[in-house]
Amino acid sequence: MRNIDLVKLHQEIEAFVAERDWDQFHSVKNLSMALTVEASELQEIFQWMPEAESNLVERDESLRGRVSDELADVFVYLLRIASKTGIDLEAAVRSKMQQNALKYPVALARGNSRKYDQL
Amino acid sequence: MRNIDLVKLHQEIEAFVAERDWDQFHSVKNLSMALTVEASELQEIFQWMPEAESNLVERDESLRGRVSDELADVFVYLLRIASKTGIDLEAAVRSKMQQNALKYPVALARGNSRKYDQL
Amino acid sequence: MRNIDLVKLHQEIEAFVAERDWDQFHSVKNLSMALTVEASELQEIFQWMPEAESNLVERDESLRGRVSDELADVFVYLLRIASKTGIDLEAAVRSKMQQNALKYPVALARGNSRKYDQL
Amino acid sequence: MRNIDLVKLHQEIEAFVAERDWDQFHSVKNLSMALTVEASELQEIFQWMPEAESNLVERDESLRGRVSDELADVFVYLLRIASKTGIDLEAAVRSKMQQNALKYPVALARGNSRKYDQL
Repeated sequence: MRNIDLVKLHQEIEAFVAERDWDQFHSVKNLSMALTVEASELQEIFQWMPEAESNLVERDESLRGRVSDELADVFVYLLRIASKTGIDLEAAVRSKMQQNALKYPVALARGNSRKYDQL
Repeated sequence: MRNIDLVKLHQEIEAFVAERDWDQFHSVKNLSMALTVEASELQEIFQWMPEAESNLVERDESLRGRVSDELADVFVYLLRIASKTGIDLEAAVRSKMQQNALKYPVALARGNSRKYDQL
Repeated sequence: MRNIDLVKLHQEIEAFVAERDWDQFHSVKNLSMALTVEASELQEIFQWMPEAESNLVERDESLRGRVSDELADVFVYLLRIASKTGIDLEAAVRSKMQQNALKYPVALARGNSRKYDQL
Repeated sequence: MRNIDLVKLHQEIEAFVAERDWDQFHSVKNLSMALTVEASELQEIFQWMPEAESNLVERDESLRGRVSDELADVFVYLLRIASKTGIDLEAAVRSKMQQNALKYPVALARGNSRKYDQL
């Protein structure tokens, strides 16, 4: 993981959308649909694949390219929604991790995949 | 949109997961499922809402908090998958935008929401 | 809505899967992924479309065909999962409607799209 | 799998919706979102579970109840969309299976989980 110039990347995405006059279609509702559609296209790649094989994406150039394209789509719609709702992604993650630290205390959650209401 | 110290944020997420020994559940396949689930929880917020209302998230503190929490979940799983597959999100977006620029040339795509195969 | 010979339809689906020796891939987990993927392909058709237009599917033969294909995929995976988990779909719907009748009493829910925990 | 009186079940669902005056929210677009949300809630049950365990749903009464509730939700939205678009689910499945028989000929697809464009 390396740092990204998010400001610049976001500007490029906004310019791409503006050039095509697509903002008229990009209500937050529609963008949330598109985000799910792209996440779902990512999972389609793995739907019949054993878990162990899904961890070896790096070894297969063609597979890695497909995963990369779907991650890109998810990231673009995520940035669009964050921008349109005025939500700061870093603050959002920090806040959610604090909530999760309470919901999933280490003593209870360690090595356990259950949801917090079933811990 | 402002810049994020992604390296630091990613380290905090990894530490959270490591403390709970959750990496054993986090195959790329499972993470892709979780990403869709979180994207879908975001869209659930908007499923019965008129589009225009979905653009006013900023005005409603409670709604904004719910959207923020779901965006955070999506972002966390996106970063986890990118990290596990060795995919650079910035390069992925640039590559996908180049492909999309060819699929959706401005002259054809301007003001048009059709998919590239129906342009 | 007309009645379907579900027993026969289900047998045809099972035969299709058996001929291709696909049952080995069809764990309930994988089938649940495929179900979401197909549902998501259905919603992709509508993601940039105004709501009013989505109600006119019947008038557009090509659009209707695409919707029909995605509904078919969803139905097939739904039947497969019901069959593999031994769940009776009719009983499941009746049980869920009883729960929903309690969660959404007419007096509170009438003309209201809020989730039960926000009524 | 046993036969269902779909006509009667569908009438009960329609009555439930009419009593609550919910049809105003149920554009085909919104129903397609709800369908994905429910499919996604089903897959959430399995997201950290090994595939083999997902095949044992019948043995765990509590788990089986949760799966049953989610399947019911998916079925209800599927019936609503089919009804609103005038699509006959049986004909839709038969038509899709004919298409799939061509896309996935037994000789090529047997024991193979690849998508048709990669066979």
